[in-house]
Amino acid sequence: MTDRFVIGIDYGTLSARAVVCRTSDGAVMGEAESVYPHAILYDHLPDGTPLPPEWALQHPQDYLDALYTSVPAAMKQSGVPRDSVIGIAVDFTGSTPMPLASDGQPLCFHAEYAGRPHAYVKLWKHHSAVREAEELNELARRYAPELLASMGGRISTEVFFAKLIQVLHEDPELFRAIDQWMEAGDWVTQQLTGESTRSMAAAINKGFYRIGIGYPAFIEETYPELRGMRNTILRGELCPIASVAGHLTAQMAERLGLPAGIVVPPMHLDAHAAVPALGVTGPGHALYTLGTSTGFMLVQPDFHAVEGACSITYSGMLPDCYGYANGQASAGDQLAWFVDHCVPASVSDEAARRGMSLHQLLTERAAALAPGQSGLIALDWWNGNRSVLQNTGLSGLMVGMTLQTQPHEMYRALLESIAFGVRRIIEAHSAAGIEMDTVHLAGGISYKNPLLVQTVSDVTGKRLLGSKRVSAPAVGAAILAAVAAGAYKTIAEAAAHMNCLSGQEYHPNAAASAVYDQLYAEYVRLHDYFGRGENDVMLRLRRLAAEQSGKG
Amino acid sequence: MTDRFVIGIDYGTLSARAVVCRTSDGAVMGEAESVYPHAILYDHLPDGTPLPPEWALQHPQDYLDALYTSVPAAMKQSGVPRDSVIGIAVDFTGSTPMPLASDGQPLCFHAEYAGRPHAYVKLWKHHSAVREAEELNELARRYAPELLASMGGRISTEVFFAKLIQVLHEDPELFRAIDQWMEAGDWVTQQLTGESTRSMAAAINKGFYRIGIGYPAFIEETYPELRGMRNTILRGELCPIASVAGHLTAQMAERLGLPAGIVVPPMHLDAHAAVPALGVTGPGHALYTLGTSTGFMLVQPDFHAVEGACSITYSGMLPDCYGYANGQASAGDQLAWFVDHCVPASVSDEAARRGMSLHQLLTERAAALAPGQSGLIALDWWNGNRSVLQNTGLSGLMVGMTLQTQPHEMYRALLESIAFGVRRIIEAHSAAGIEMDTVHLAGGISYKNPLLVQTVSDVTGKRLLGSKRVSAPAVGAAILAAVAAGAYKTIAEAAAHMNCLSGQEYHPNAAASAVYDQLYAEYVRLHDYFGRGENDVMLRLRRLAAEQSGKG
Repeated sequence: MTDRFVIGIDYGTLSARAVVCRTSDGAVMGEAESVYPHAILYDHLPDGTPLPPEWALQHPQDYLDALYTSVPAAMKQSGVPRDSVIGIAVDFTGSTPMPLASDGQPLCFHAEYAGRPHAYVKLWKHHSAVREAEELNELARRYAPELLASMGGRISTEVFFAKLIQVLHEDPELFRAIDQWMEAGDWVTQQLTGESTRSMAAAINKGFYRIGIGYPAFIEETYPELRGMRNTILRGELCPIASVAGHLTAQMAERLGLPAGIVVPPMHLDAHAAVPALGVTGPGHALYTLGTSTGFMLVQPDFHAVEGACSITYSGMLPDCYGYANGQASAGDQLAWFVDHCVPASVSDEAARRGMSLHQLLTERAAALAPGQSGLIALDWWNGNRSVLQNTGLSGLMVGMTLQTQPHEMYRALLESIAFGVRRIIEAHSAAGIEMDTVHLAGGISYKNPLLVQTVSDVTGKRLLGSKRVSAPAVGAAILAAVAAGAYKTIAEAAAHMNCLSGQEYHPNAAASAVYDQLYAEYVRLHDYFGRGENDVMLRLRRLAAEQSGKG
Repeated sequence: MTDRFVIGIDYGTLSARAVVCRTSDGAVMGEAESVYPHAILYDHLPDGTPLPPEWALQHPQDYLDALYTSVPAAMKQSGVPRDSVIGIAVDFTGSTPMPLASDGQPLCFHAEYAGRPHAYVKLWKHHSAVREAEELNELARRYAPELLASMGGRISTEVFFAKLIQVLHEDPELFRAIDQWMEAGDWVTQQLTGESTRSMAAAINKGFYRIGIGYPAFIEETYPELRGMRNTILRGELCPIASVAGHLTAQMAERLGLPAGIVVPPMHLDAHAAVPALGVTGPGHALYTLGTSTGFMLVQPDFHAVEGACSITYSGMLPDCYGYANGQASAGDQLAWFVDHCVPASVSDEAARRGMSLHQLLTERAAALAPGQSGLIALDWWNGNRSVLQNTGLSGLMVGMTLQTQPHEMYRALLESIAFGVRRIIEAHSAAGIEMDTVHLAGGISYKNPLLVQTVSDVTGKRLLGSKRVSAPAVGAAILAAVAAGAYKTIAEAAAHMNCLSGQEYHPNAAASAVYDQLYAEYVRLHDYFGRGENDVMLRLRRLAAEQSGKG
């Protein structure tokens, strides 16, 4: 049997990365990245129109250009025959929605709207729809508490409808010009297929959509301009994960150097596309992504009320099951903060002399310590807690410093706090009846810091599986394309063959685990004391800091 | 009336400093310092005999040499006529005891003992009499709980008898050769007068002596070798503060270039000598010494049970009243730790470029913040807590860090924690019925860091009085000499004229105080939570660190 191939394209925040994968084993035959020329529009539009604070826009032309360059480049690198490609799929950041004009083109492509901020794509990290998020929270509290609960108890400014209603509030004239409002990932997929379809999973995760219920009625009841939206600005078939959203148009096939008519599934959100890519498709396993922050994701056949889960959705992560998403608000960020702000010249000089990064030198020294030897413990809340406690007002804490405390000891305490944090998340699942024995790792730090990875294993007592240093979301998109194209019957089957696990395993060291059990008990006690209202000093300090800011 | 002068000599840990003071106004006419050539014997004796860990000895010849050089140099600098000097006095570290042979010479001056560690002076920071301190604690708990209470609930390894009994235990042969055992400060005074006298105040503070009671009986009852000690190895008249211990011998007068027969009071402990020097002689006032650690001292006509006072003695600080001593185990130390371990190259580079110390640059930046603006709070326990909580096992804590937290914000939090710590001490006095409105400042940091001083005023709400940058203990000794010589009737009267206050005052800023009241409430809550047994995590972390040490 001849080899067949699928293409996955991961649309990240600053670039898109295309991979060409072999369906039999997931081997990445070719890979190419295209950076968005406009990157993120924070301060002004391309024509110079200034943007208010907390805005973050993108230019949709960048997505097309990235498609046109990355796919042919990845194909060329792969050397695979054009006709052996059987599917292509996209994953995307979200909610990253955009308005289209009645001609199907993005509103911002029209000269008359090119100077209007609301005509552009609102990137996931566009955080200015504060009023709208508040309104949605209020509505959800009143009418749909179970919806709110499934989103971690709070609707953020990032969601699909907050961004849409912001247009309605701030530029009603432009709002009237919107013919369709969709996730940019859906728009790219529509460019590939020419079909009016959308990702059901994205609608579930970012658009409050629920299978069997639809969009919540309170939206149309509150905003008369949105009445009938399902058949107007939100029109298009909602396609389940790995279904067939359409087939590659002849024109696009020509442009990309691919066979016309190959299968295209609906786009998937980037974080969720990584789940099958890392081989997580059923109970007993979880995906832990260690980057600047962390993600913790898993699927279950049934619903469990997990304390502090950011998101629990049915058919939003993988089809026909519940997807659970959680995570820590800082991890790599916290270590980077330490390296940037707390490491003396004596240490940075040695790192420079030995040609190491500060992270490497501190990790080398920290690795020479035994667990508990530093006498320190920290709470991993430098960026708040968005897992079990769901409180962004919490902040960092370190206990145990003496006049002898060294920088690498504090670095190790910060690193251990990340491991304690994920153990706390695992135990929140366990308390809700979700058990797991294996954690699949992804993310930059999982490749770079073996001490952190081993510490996570020692602290959690779990077996960890390492992964290859490839774009997991892109491989995930390719897996979905393989399933949509019929190369496999199920995502689980496809993932079993095509995942990007490296074969490397980490096992807990029993002696270290025993010491960490003691330290973790201390962590939990501090976690609960500072996080569950016994002493809200962190919240009060933050409030006072805001009041006093600028009075110095 | 012609001017008259007194000499005070402050025997510190590494050097002695002599001052020549005018009795009318305390003006320091001359000043000279002599460094001890042997400094501290930590590792070995002068002949190479090695010393075990935690030992700290001194060589008594250094004290004589320092006397012979510093006094003539100070006199020469002062230009005052030799015959206008009417008294001379010594203050000394303590307990810093030493053994004498039957010829009145230090045992270590004898060739046969020069290689025996126990023949030397045991400096106050000699910490190896651990077993002996434990025995004394056990005895005091059983027989003299009120003695224990007057010493902060715990007898340290530093006390006079722990060091004596260590000789008995570890070198019984040398113990039998001891003809007298005395504070080195008493020995120096005896060299000046030729009289067999001792400082009653030092005996009270470091030797368990109580007026009307004597030395506690349990010592002689437990250690038969010490029976009758008051008339043997501890013989000599115990002289009250500022009494006449004797008169300068002709031989010593010749050597020092002073009139023979001038008055010499008993030596006083250095920290206590500073009390009258800073003008603290009655209720309503306290002395706060801001150095690597801090001291907080005051006098009262009557006894109050102040929580966590390190020492409450009658006639041990000033005559015929109760002296209260307290203090924080770290202050300057804690800021130095931060500067040494936690300041990145970007900050140290700027300090170097601008020719500032790191302390200066961080203080400059910290001073630009408003109180509370950092969002941080710290507990000042990097070296344990030896004030209200009397627990050396406690450790440092900082709360409130975010990814935006800057080094100068943490520096300010550490600085503020020092001010919170002293407010806690002031409130412990207040709770026991001791009120004060004015705090007199001394110590290196009080001259160097105006931000810290102002913060202490803002946090405590007290008026602060600054002092001149002179050796306060030496001026204190000179004041005691002036009183002994009859220039003044009382120490209070002498101190009123001769103190070294600078005239500089600091007053609390009401707006800052209001914010600090909120932060101090947070401090107290954390102080009690971590310090009073609600969560002993600091003690457990320290124990675990000791267990795990060397297992890395």
